[in-house]
Amino acid sequence: MTFFSRPICIVALGSALAATTAFAAGHSEKAVADAVKARHAQMQMVGYHTGVLGDIAKGERPFDSAMVDAAAGNIAALAKLEHATLWLEGSEQGAVEGSRAKSEIWSDAAGFTAKFTDMQTAALALVGAADQGAVGAGMGALGETCKACHETFRGPKN
Amino acid sequence: MTFFSRPICIVALGSALAATTAFAAGHSEKAVADAVKARHAQMQMVGYHTGVLGDIAKGERPFDSAMVDAAAGNIAALAKLEHATLWLEGSEQGAVEGSRAKSEIWSDAAGFTAKFTDMQTAALALVGAADQGAVGAGMGALGETCKACHETFRGPKN
Repeated sequence: MTFFSRPICIVALGSALAATTAFAAGHSEKAVADAVKARHAQMQMVGYHTGVLGDIAKGERPFDSAMVDAAAGNIAALAKLEHATLWLEGSEQGAVEGSRAKSEIWSDAAGFTAKFTDMQTAALALVGAADQGAVGAGMGALGETCKACHETFRGPKN
Repeated sequence: MTFFSRPICIVALGSALAATTAFAAGHSEKAVADAVKARHAQMQMVGYHTGVLGDIAKGERPFDSAMVDAAAGNIAALAKLEHATLWLEGSEQGAVEGSRAKSEIWSDAAGFTAKFTDMQTAALALVGAADQGAVGAGMGALGETCKACHETFRGPKN
């Protein structure tokens, strides 16, 4: 027994270390898939609220300052959501179905966060917009922040 | 022409008033359907984050204070989203596909907002949870707030 116990222990320890490393660096397949779905829900909500503002800018909905402020405030809140739960390592495009997240999201986390801060700033600038024209102008600036992030951190269509 | 112009004007004015009233009280069919989808995305995100916390409470994910704080903070932020864009009048159950919103959401708007405030408070209480047990306890309290709102303001399954 003593003769064999050492290599068995080393193998067992090696497996335990490998499992721990995988756990620390990544997440379960389900956890990663769920995170991607939650990000899509986040983007869906951003899209909904930019749609409300876009409709107001185009005159397809009446200008309503309470609605504008709520839409802009909600976009800012969505831009401010914490990344730790949403942008799990191992959830990049190719690693999980539906993801278009580029690896730069993790290699340049500060740059990625800055894009969300830009979106938040542009959204908050729309709060208090005085009329349809102001919403249109603010929407242009907001749209630029969406585009800037997508160009840098979003991969091609799946 | 003068003889006919008055009734025509009255009819036209009547139509314009009717259209304006419908527009002010309600929203386009598409606007209402989009709001319901956005609410579902909001609830999906809340569900995702409570799932993360639930997994930690059950020991299915390792306790990680950064993850707990992010999940709790995001739930609080989602609970705080402005209602004006999401809970459009005319988007109650029966009026639009997929909705389970009870009419009490609009007849008791203050009570409805209070439920979201309760959720926010319970979520924020989880920030800084010291260990798995604390997450479990906090999750119990958070779950109660979900249940309380659903019991009062959510209709039966469609």
